[in-house]
Amino acid sequence: MIDGSFHFTVQAFAGAARAGVFSTPHGSVDTPAFMAVGTLATVKTLDPQELRDAGCGMLLANAYHLHLRPGENVVAKLGGLHRFMAWDGPILTDSGGFQVFSLETLRKVSEQGVEFRSHVDGSQRDFTPESVIALQIALGADVMMQFDHVIPGQSDFEAARDASERSIRGLERSRSYLGSRGLGVGSGSHSLSPNPHSPVSPTPQALFPIVQGGIHSSLRENAAKAIASMDDWAGYGIGGLSVGEAKPDMYAMIEVADSVLPRDRPRYLMGVGFPEDLIEGARRGVDLFDCVAPTRMGRSGTAFTSHGRVNVRNAGLREDAAPLDSKCDCSTCTRFSRAYLRHLFVSGEVLGLRLLSLHNVHFLVSLMRSARAAILDGTFEPWSHDWLGRYHSRPTPVQ
Amino acid sequence: MIDGSFHFTVQAFAGAARAGVFSTPHGSVDTPAFMAVGTLATVKTLDPQELRDAGCGMLLANAYHLHLRPGENVVAKLGGLHRFMAWDGPILTDSGGFQVFSLETLRKVSEQGVEFRSHVDGSQRDFTPESVIALQIALGADVMMQFDHVIPGQSDFEAARDASERSIRGLERSRSYLGSRGLGVGSGSHSLSPNPHSPVSPTPQALFPIVQGGIHSSLRENAAKAIASMDDWAGYGIGGLSVGEAKPDMYAMIEVADSVLPRDRPRYLMGVGFPEDLIEGARRGVDLFDCVAPTRMGRSGTAFTSHGRVNVRNAGLREDAAPLDSKCDCSTCTRFSRAYLRHLFVSGEVLGLRLLSLHNVHFLVSLMRSARAAILDGTFEPWSHDWLGRYHSRPTPVQ
Repeated sequence: MIDGSFHFTVQAFAGAARAGVFSTPHGSVDTPAFMAVGTLATVKTLDPQELRDAGCGMLLANAYHLHLRPGENVVAKLGGLHRFMAWDGPILTDSGGFQVFSLETLRKVSEQGVEFRSHVDGSQRDFTPESVIALQIALGADVMMQFDHVIPGQSDFEAARDASERSIRGLERSRSYLGSRGLGVGSGSHSLSPNPHSPVSPTPQALFPIVQGGIHSSLRENAAKAIASMDDWAGYGIGGLSVGEAKPDMYAMIEVADSVLPRDRPRYLMGVGFPEDLIEGARRGVDLFDCVAPTRMGRSGTAFTSHGRVNVRNAGLREDAAPLDSKCDCSTCTRFSRAYLRHLFVSGEVLGLRLLSLHNVHFLVSLMRSARAAILDGTFEPWSHDWLGRYHSRPTPVQ
Repeated sequence: MIDGSFHFTVQAFAGAARAGVFSTPHGSVDTPAFMAVGTLATVKTLDPQELRDAGCGMLLANAYHLHLRPGENVVAKLGGLHRFMAWDGPILTDSGGFQVFSLETLRKVSEQGVEFRSHVDGSQRDFTPESVIALQIALGADVMMQFDHVIPGQSDFEAARDASERSIRGLERSRSYLGSRGLGVGSGSHSLSPNPHSPVSPTPQALFPIVQGGIHSSLRENAAKAIASMDDWAGYGIGGLSVGEAKPDMYAMIEVADSVLPRDRPRYLMGVGFPEDLIEGARRGVDLFDCVAPTRMGRSGTAFTSHGRVNVRNAGLREDAAPLDSKCDCSTCTRFSRAYLRHLFVSGEVLGLRLLSLHNVHFLVSLMRSARAAILDGTFEPWSHDWLGRYHSRPTPVQ
């Protein structure tokens, strides 16, 4: 580490895929890694200790949601996000760009920022690139994301260009805002962003820019170049993907980013994803992922397994003594049968939501741990081929 | 232990209160003890490992509910209740008498048994003293409860006599049913009730009779005498209390039972209760308690504390950095603030239900552990006086 705050070391490559270590003030994360999503400072249904035991290294929370409830000043008064949610490992806060631009009828976009109504109580709110940085400083996560302009996945060139360029102008303003407070953006040797709102000792924070540009290669390339030339960032977000576009388009956009962004910084593919997306993303040089899928699916009764998805409500599981996934060593699979999990869901018991959410998070965390091991020992290509073949084979009739 | 199955050792008395050890085939329980209620083979919102870590020694499940969902044969095929719910400690199954007699319009009572309609799917069901034993043998809990006739708390003498005497006749039939299968009732040297439905090695089960008689001392006395003279039971249930009667009536009924039932067997006060009830019950010679209150209250946002109850939705807790109870060493209080718990409840997050349920169960388990320590060191009277005085003082305006 250059200054004890943020640093990324690549240990091995396998084509564009990399095994690395991302160091933050709250510890380091082996990459590639899946980050569980704790939107409201809680990974839905799960306890931070369970997440640690399941192998989670870094969590995500959401600045938009925490601004509305309980408010960033409440979090700051209570010692910041780490202390508030009892997670002493690294945390990244998403800016809320995705959420605000998803509001559609509730928002008004201008060059200055976005006016919107809270989805909780209808109150009028105002996000600007500057205010979203202030918000995230109050929360105190290790990594802050810029306030970006997110558009639907199949937006045309002009709409995508407008949003991408506005995001870059917003990044400049975010950087200026930090500079005006004597703070850096978190990379290399100028990463100290003490948190003035927190009663506990301030810790440095890093700002990640976000590459936008829809599914248009030239926009993505221009954005990545403009951002990378602006500063020596501690890491880079790749946003606006997995929002309705075709998979080949998503993969192509990741490849453009990989070809432009510095190889010695972590790349975070925002809101992605499913097991196959994680493998394809890692193959194209992505280091960090997040998605609500494992917990959302878990709460609906669907589990990832090494042979595809299983819906535990299926009547065929009524007396099934096998675990969800015989290859899984999570605390759900090592203790409970499919029949018991089905019983919990059929009976509306909360423990079912927990056990499936935990299994699904563990599944993605373990998947990236396996990918990392394969990159390190030079077997990433055959490993990923075998893994995807098995995952899509679905021999069990319990989809 | 006489035969390695069920045994109760009293280590110290403090008046009628006793500190003891109840040994079962799945381990021993220090008494007095609070048993958490896992109606459907899950203590609502909690994981068995959390319960173990919180100090729980013995859990309760419900034969009526498990008969309806998932069915006792499913549980038996999956290895019995312990394996099904991944709890290797002692388990007691309640018979469902309370549930069946609570159905009112859905049931038809005869000397033979009770016909009723499932509250789940409306299907016709039939419980008899014999069928309820068969059901509990299939479930395989350590302690089975007889199928008793439960009546409202303020029933008149004749109604109470009718129900109490029918319960005693039912007990005779339960005992005969076990005898016809070559099984004993679980006490002393004739306690082996191998579980023929289970694919795993059968373990002995004990049958506890239940003393009924409403709030009529003579009925309670007669019932206790009739039951105690019938066999050398491994333990005794005291039922039909905490069902609407006045507290002094409940205490008087416990005292009658204490005066008649053998002192060298554990007494289980069914469905009780709240902290003050546990202390008053232990004072009158009760060893085991159960109640849904800690988890039900926990799910509604109410916590027991050493200074009375706290509702975590209270707006006054919005920025409260203190734990629920500064004297508590549970995993909720040692990690999370009242403000965080309030945030979880206000936001509808499942983790809130978990953290309060766990705290409340830990609170009652710890309360009985403290009572036991006080009995052992001869300070039960001053300890209970101090504890109740503090509990009722409620200095914090967050009720």
